[in-house]
Amino acid sequence: MKKIGVAILGLGVVGGGTYKILTEKKEFFKRTQGVDVTVECALEKNIERAKALGISEDRIASNIEEVVSNPAVDVVVEVMGGVEPAKTFVLKALFSGKSVVTSNKELFAKHWPELEAAAKERNVGLFFEATCVGGVPIIRVLQESMQGNEIQSIKGIINGTTNYILTKMANEGSSYEEALKEAQKLGYAEFNPTADVEAFDATYKLSILSSLAFNTKINIENIYREGITGVKTEDIAHGKEMGYTLKLLAIGKNTEKGVEVRVHPTFIKNGDPLASVNDSFNAVHLYGDAVGDIMLYGRGAGSLPTGSAIVSDVIFAGKHDEYFYSCFNGDKGAKTKFVSDFKSKYYVRLIVKDAVGVLSDFTGVFAKNGISIEQVKQISAGNGESAEVVIITHKSKESAINKALEKIKSSDFVNAIGGCIRIED
Amino acid sequence: MKKIGVAILGLGVVGGGTYKILTEKKEFFKRTQGVDVTVECALEKNIERAKALGISEDRIASNIEEVVSNPAVDVVVEVMGGVEPAKTFVLKALFSGKSVVTSNKELFAKHWPELEAAAKERNVGLFFEATCVGGVPIIRVLQESMQGNEIQSIKGIINGTTNYILTKMANEGSSYEEALKEAQKLGYAEFNPTADVEAFDATYKLSILSSLAFNTKINIENIYREGITGVKTEDIAHGKEMGYTLKLLAIGKNTEKGVEVRVHPTFIKNGDPLASVNDSFNAVHLYGDAVGDIMLYGRGAGSLPTGSAIVSDVIFAGKHDEYFYSCFNGDKGAKTKFVSDFKSKYYVRLIVKDAVGVLSDFTGVFAKNGISIEQVKQISAGNGESAEVVIITHKSKESAINKALEKIKSSDFVNAIGGCIRIED
Repeated sequence: MKKIGVAILGLGVVGGGTYKILTEKKEFFKRTQGVDVTVECALEKNIERAKALGISEDRIASNIEEVVSNPAVDVVVEVMGGVEPAKTFVLKALFSGKSVVTSNKELFAKHWPELEAAAKERNVGLFFEATCVGGVPIIRVLQESMQGNEIQSIKGIINGTTNYILTKMANEGSSYEEALKEAQKLGYAEFNPTADVEAFDATYKLSILSSLAFNTKINIENIYREGITGVKTEDIAHGKEMGYTLKLLAIGKNTEKGVEVRVHPTFIKNGDPLASVNDSFNAVHLYGDAVGDIMLYGRGAGSLPTGSAIVSDVIFAGKHDEYFYSCFNGDKGAKTKFVSDFKSKYYVRLIVKDAVGVLSDFTGVFAKNGISIEQVKQISAGNGESAEVVIITHKSKESAINKALEKIKSSDFVNAIGGCIRIED
Repeated sequence: MKKIGVAILGLGVVGGGTYKILTEKKEFFKRTQGVDVTVECALEKNIERAKALGISEDRIASNIEEVVSNPAVDVVVEVMGGVEPAKTFVLKALFSGKSVVTSNKELFAKHWPELEAAAKERNVGLFFEATCVGGVPIIRVLQESMQGNEIQSIKGIINGTTNYILTKMANEGSSYEEALKEAQKLGYAEFNPTADVEAFDATYKLSILSSLAFNTKINIENIYREGITGVKTEDIAHGKEMGYTLKLLAIGKNTEKGVEVRVHPTFIKNGDPLASVNDSFNAVHLYGDAVGDIMLYGRGAGSLPTGSAIVSDVIFAGKHDEYFYSCFNGDKGAKTKFVSDFKSKYYVRLIVKDAVGVLSDFTGVFAKNGISIEQVKQISAGNGESAEVVIITHKSKESAINKALEKIKSSDFVNAIGGCIRIED
């Protein structure tokens, strides 16, 4: 029976879940997969944490050299997070002839080509299912199941923290701050929530997913990023009434004009399958020219779901010794054209003076910028001083909307722009 | 660059789609997959059909020997359907050292172990993504992404024809017969629709999927099968009002008591993600002990979606020469225990006499058989002669329900059993 020796770098939430699955299911893997998996060692400064998991002291490595020089180790699992020292450790493992399995989306989004080159040079495997959408096997599906397709679009709810917050704001009318606090209390959000709520996390994941989907390297610098800290509960409520659900959507499109990649709060139709993905659940929708619509749904984070992805990579890596997948065959992304001035429908909420001529004033500004309006709705009755109006535009260029809003801001009739949210339908 | 020579057996809907993708995307595969795929020959009696696809006469084989003796052929794609001559052809291909990719669910469900043994003996690949749920990569996900999980349940809408019919009955109030005719007109249902509407097709697929999910061979004889020909539009409507959507659901459960596998019309809660899978779309929901809930959604049939699955197998097969996946490591299913007297909640519609004592009569029968009732609803006002009543039971054994219904049928108070549908929630 094939033996797979594993080292785990980092025994946090994901490392702990991985260790638990690998050890508790040793016999199950022998029976169902025909492989004998052993966790040979772990690299973890916090000895107590390692011991609490049941790892004996002689299997706790004190430095990376000890791990990569261990001949019993075939696969190194990196679940430390952050760029350094993870990058150094991963490169050492690859150059020592070990296959690497990682959940480190930041490292991968920023340094994938360098890691891939090292894996290629030493002819070992580099696996990263756990970098994106936890237990949902979107990476393997893109690599091993969609080869017959030119993927035209990828749309996903790929951050559980923000989806939990937005669901709570929508269903319970909580403010952003209240919902964030609740998410922190439940462990869905970090004490410093920036990476999630400012959409850095989703941007890393979209960089990886769109690179695979479009067969070219999409760097994080190419991705438009906007988080959810500015989202107001009342805009979610108005949108709902008008048939829309607000999600932090990661969007990748491959069109004749170029690749368009962006992460931002987005209204989608209430009937869209992604609209019913709630709480900390994640989902990714693909459109391939052969397969049509495909959606994958599941838990995007957590100890065991992410552990499930890592274990699947460990067994895959153990069964296929050779390096076997290259994302960037023939296209390193240098020639990729990007669309930055992308087109969307827009939801715009204006707080306007309650006076004659207001409507013609701001609709005039939209018209002058070539933006046609699909719908105008007064949402609060005028009180003689101010009124609130929501406008839904037809598809317009980003640049045109920005120009129009600049102009509207300085109008005497408009007190403030209450909210401005892109619509994807 | 690695060359992959392909032979296609059968140029029907799926064979045609496969040919189209493989030939039109030859350059795309070189660039993105690093493989050079060529359709070397096709086996098809209908020469005109082959020519219409643009296959020159010298590449149309006249018999299987010609195909399997062709040294340029690495992978044989079998898309003929039916057990014979497909089985003979597939075995010949395997014994000639060719890897085989098939979409033939009937062949696979009935003869998988024999085919697998042949593949193992010759150390070649045997791939069957296209046997289940068209373009949705559920097979590869079960094989290559869920290794860390003991799958506890699998639930799926895995037949597009019946889902189209039930959606039409639910949304438009069509009768079964009307909806079937419409499905036939649109090409979703065959002229002889038995395989779909009597759930043979779904049973073949559940046999394959549950074998993979539970790591043991589940034969079609072990699966309870009930089609949709007896479904009445009024029961769909009553269920909807009570919060349920009717689907032909394929269900597999792996419990401590044994494996439970069944396909039948099933009410699921309106809010269940599977409830919004409409028309000819398919979806499969899994619950794994590590990953939790996972759902995959997409097109379950059609030329290009199923072609997408086959092409993915062809490229996977071409890249991994060696036989690499065995479903039945260590467990050929001989020891598998099955649960046949499974438990469900039930929806029962009774046409009863409009008389005093009716309610206590049939509720008494349920009680005597140990069935407790969750809800009773009179759905048509009594007209002095008869009335209609819907009962929702708590979870009860199949055998108890059958006994109760036998008794109720012979009751003086009950004119007829209008409908009886299992509920899964």
